[in-house]
Amino acid sequence: MKGIGALITTFGVGELSALNAVAGSYAEYVPVVHIVGSPSTTAQRKKLLLHHTLGDGDYKAFTNIYKQVTVAQANLHDLTIATTEIDRVLRTCWLKSRPVYIELPSDMVTKDVPARGLSTPLDISFPTNDASLETGVAEEILSRLYGAEKPVLLLDGCVIRHHLKAEATEFVTKTGLPIFTTPMGKGTIDETLPTFAGLYAGSGSHDNVRELVESSDMVLSLGLMESDFNTMSFTYKLPTRNAVDLHTEHVTVEGKVFDLHMHGLLQRLSSLVDASKLAGKPHSEQVFDVHRAASASLPEASYPDSTITHAYLWRQLSKWLRPNDVLCTEIGSSYLGVWDTQFPANTFAISQTLWGSIGYTLPAAQGVALAARELGRPGRVMLFEGDGSSQLTAQAIGTMLKLNLDIIIFLINNDGYTVERWVHGMEEPYNDVPAWRYSQLPETMGARLGAGGNARAMQVRTRAEIEALWETHEFQNVKGRGMQFVEVFMPKLDAPVPLKMFCTRAEKNNSK
Amino acid sequence: MKGIGALITTFGVGELSALNAVAGSYAEYVPVVHIVGSPSTTAQRKKLLLHHTLGDGDYKAFTNIYKQVTVAQANLHDLTIATTEIDRVLRTCWLKSRPVYIELPSDMVTKDVPARGLSTPLDISFPTNDASLETGVAEEILSRLYGAEKPVLLLDGCVIRHHLKAEATEFVTKTGLPIFTTPMGKGTIDETLPTFAGLYAGSGSHDNVRELVESSDMVLSLGLMESDFNTMSFTYKLPTRNAVDLHTEHVTVEGKVFDLHMHGLLQRLSSLVDASKLAGKPHSEQVFDVHRAASASLPEASYPDSTITHAYLWRQLSKWLRPNDVLCTEIGSSYLGVWDTQFPANTFAISQTLWGSIGYTLPAAQGVALAARELGRPGRVMLFEGDGSSQLTAQAIGTMLKLNLDIIIFLINNDGYTVERWVHGMEEPYNDVPAWRYSQLPETMGARLGAGGNARAMQVRTRAEIEALWETHEFQNVKGRGMQFVEVFMPKLDAPVPLKMFCTRAEKNNSK
Repeated sequence: MKGIGALITTFGVGELSALNAVAGSYAEYVPVVHIVGSPSTTAQRKKLLLHHTLGDGDYKAFTNIYKQVTVAQANLHDLTIATTEIDRVLRTCWLKSRPVYIELPSDMVTKDVPARGLSTPLDISFPTNDASLETGVAEEILSRLYGAEKPVLLLDGCVIRHHLKAEATEFVTKTGLPIFTTPMGKGTIDETLPTFAGLYAGSGSHDNVRELVESSDMVLSLGLMESDFNTMSFTYKLPTRNAVDLHTEHVTVEGKVFDLHMHGLLQRLSSLVDASKLAGKPHSEQVFDVHRAASASLPEASYPDSTITHAYLWRQLSKWLRPNDVLCTEIGSSYLGVWDTQFPANTFAISQTLWGSIGYTLPAAQGVALAARELGRPGRVMLFEGDGSSQLTAQAIGTMLKLNLDIIIFLINNDGYTVERWVHGMEEPYNDVPAWRYSQLPETMGARLGAGGNARAMQVRTRAEIEALWETHEFQNVKGRGMQFVEVFMPKLDAPVPLKMFCTRAEKNNSK
Repeated sequence: MKGIGALITTFGVGELSALNAVAGSYAEYVPVVHIVGSPSTTAQRKKLLLHHTLGDGDYKAFTNIYKQVTVAQANLHDLTIATTEIDRVLRTCWLKSRPVYIELPSDMVTKDVPARGLSTPLDISFPTNDASLETGVAEEILSRLYGAEKPVLLLDGCVIRHHLKAEATEFVTKTGLPIFTTPMGKGTIDETLPTFAGLYAGSGSHDNVRELVESSDMVLSLGLMESDFNTMSFTYKLPTRNAVDLHTEHVTVEGKVFDLHMHGLLQRLSSLVDASKLAGKPHSEQVFDVHRAASASLPEASYPDSTITHAYLWRQLSKWLRPNDVLCTEIGSSYLGVWDTQFPANTFAISQTLWGSIGYTLPAAQGVALAARELGRPGRVMLFEGDGSSQLTAQAIGTMLKLNLDIIIFLINNDGYTVERWVHGMEEPYNDVPAWRYSQLPETMGARLGAGGNARAMQVRTRAEIEALWETHEFQNVKGRGMQFVEVFMPKLDAPVPLKMFCTRAEKNNSK
């Protein structure tokens, strides 16, 4: 939300509990500064047998672990280099857009260091490209674009993760070409732009989208990250002729690799492009049509019209969202469901596509809501979370309440791990979870319910009920109203079509 | 409880979430077999960009992390050696009494392997010592014991963690010498033995205990582990003359080290000892007197007689416990409080002295209660847990209820992290926690309350209330009655004396 985050833990027990979360930030290119409070330099030098150690006097064991999931590490045990070390890791954190690790021994906390470093702004500018190479490659790319009959643009996750949203937006809007996003790229571009043409996810795309992308004679991609979730299990069929892929630190033009940073190259492309030379086709008008021929072989149940199904919920959500809303969707039903939701302008989207750690999104939404309040961001922060995944990190509800955060939580109760049922063991007990009474969670975790309180807790079972809820003033004006906690009952085996497609493929791949 | 444990997780997200727990088992010498389900061998060979990876095709990253906290690793990707690999790591797990790691790719689950290995029992015997060295050292130790005027025995944590309780019990009861345990050694020896003389923890000991140990002219220790929690911040004053320390894989005799395994040496000592030659003194009769001169400088508040204070609770608990009870005490108030509790025969004690990860004991108690049921162990499983630490792992309550486990939970509500208040920041907000309504947790997490249900939930605020509770038939006959969940209100700043002593020293050490 703010571009960079921070996390403080104790050493050993604290930092290892946070390792999954930090590894997720590493995989997903999220810049996080992890500060670890460790025993005093004296205790470490004497190799004291302290609690929270492995008992072997090795005070490097945890740093060694963190080297696997951070791009820079510093131990502030030396006053003479402490401030330059801090600058070094902060700069690396930002430029690589990945977590870094700073160890702070307890006796160093109150030590004085020279303040002079503070008068020099931290240099976090992206590296400059070789100007003639940059211009040459930009002209080569533009010349191919000018020559193509049906060029399209594809925006993926690394654009937003590497802080290049503004540069990308300038270029793609200047061209006027049809714009597609991948699942991980959702939220990168304004989906109400007339040139926005839909979400491409290989065989998980809507038919008209897939046709437009795969029949194009030139796909120019930005920040592509072809992971299994993002590509519906590697079902992309992008034309290789004229393929141009701008990555963060290099670009490929029909197979040839050039050492150019996307930041400078995008700016160069924007300044050089002549939109009148482009033959962009208008996009289909049905970009959020849900027909997917590839899903025809999947089992499908029918439910009464009043039932809140995935086919209903995620398309309906398009009508409820407003500009500036922040949408946190847990990996699983919610993340794959939202492929069929059209985002208003300036929708901020949080999901963990690659790392996919269930339970991530609930505490992530806590951080998002706190940041939104601090930033004074207009719009609502809302979370869609499953019952199974909520049980991994439910504590965050207590912290949200303690901080009086404004947040709308939809906890989808579909009686266990529906994703895992679709992968393997539809009726197996290992996909069941303890039968929590979810709507009691806010009160149990400290909510003050009722007038003047900091939370409401509700259950909805029908479309009429959830639609009525959206009309309430608490949903329309969330600021200062605290938590709106909604337990949404959905059928146990219902799932968004892309989820069914993905899981069915995943089961096959697991046995190969 | 069963001597060895097992854990199954998925790779990446699952195993990293479990890392703190497995690291704790490594530090504490608890044998655990961690089985990790990973992507198929084909996917790994092709370096596919799958979810739950770091996105770089490196399928060794997590195993590399686990090498820091496990004593053996195997990847069952090769059918020809899979079964011997399993045997190798299981043997290492048992003999080193530490965690091991087995990776099982998804496609290997259903593959056939030769069954012939199953007809040969796994060899998990301890290594045999050199017989003449063993005899010589045993005679040297016994000769010193015979010559000493006031010899004492000190039992620490590595005895029980290395499965040597039976051998140690035989030796110490045969000698008839005064027996002391360390905090980590509690539960190793029957505290109702006439020769049991109390708990030694340096300056944290009761005065009479400290006097008996530190004025002895020979201390023979078994399985010593001199960590900060175990020694009241390194305040042991053991005589060095005649010092004999039996460790798991070596022994020291007044500074000289011999390469002898404790297992064989203890058996040799038992077979050779002539108790009539020993000058064991009778122990003090007041082994659980709580006077500690060293605590005189600590601040102390006074509370009404009806208040449940630590000074009351832990001595009172001695009266409530029965043989075969299992007592799980969370690190913090409960773990240090129980130093003043006398255990009946065959009390099994669970605590995490060295690793000290708050939140450990609640899910640990879940495993204990399940194992106790499977073993048909008589006696009750009970847990003492703080409010702060319970918030880290409260989910386990839901799993206990799902499994209908019989367990007594005392959740001590003292309004935040009392341990941390005593270390630093007595009134600082970072030591506060969200104000959960703890006694609602069982119902929220799925309990069936009332007659025929699987749980009761209660609050107690006075000594009379908690004493009445112990008399109820649900506390006297727990089998089949499910969860007895008791929220115990205790004063915010009250703490066991050893905890106050430890934390006050810890704050000083942190700034050095």
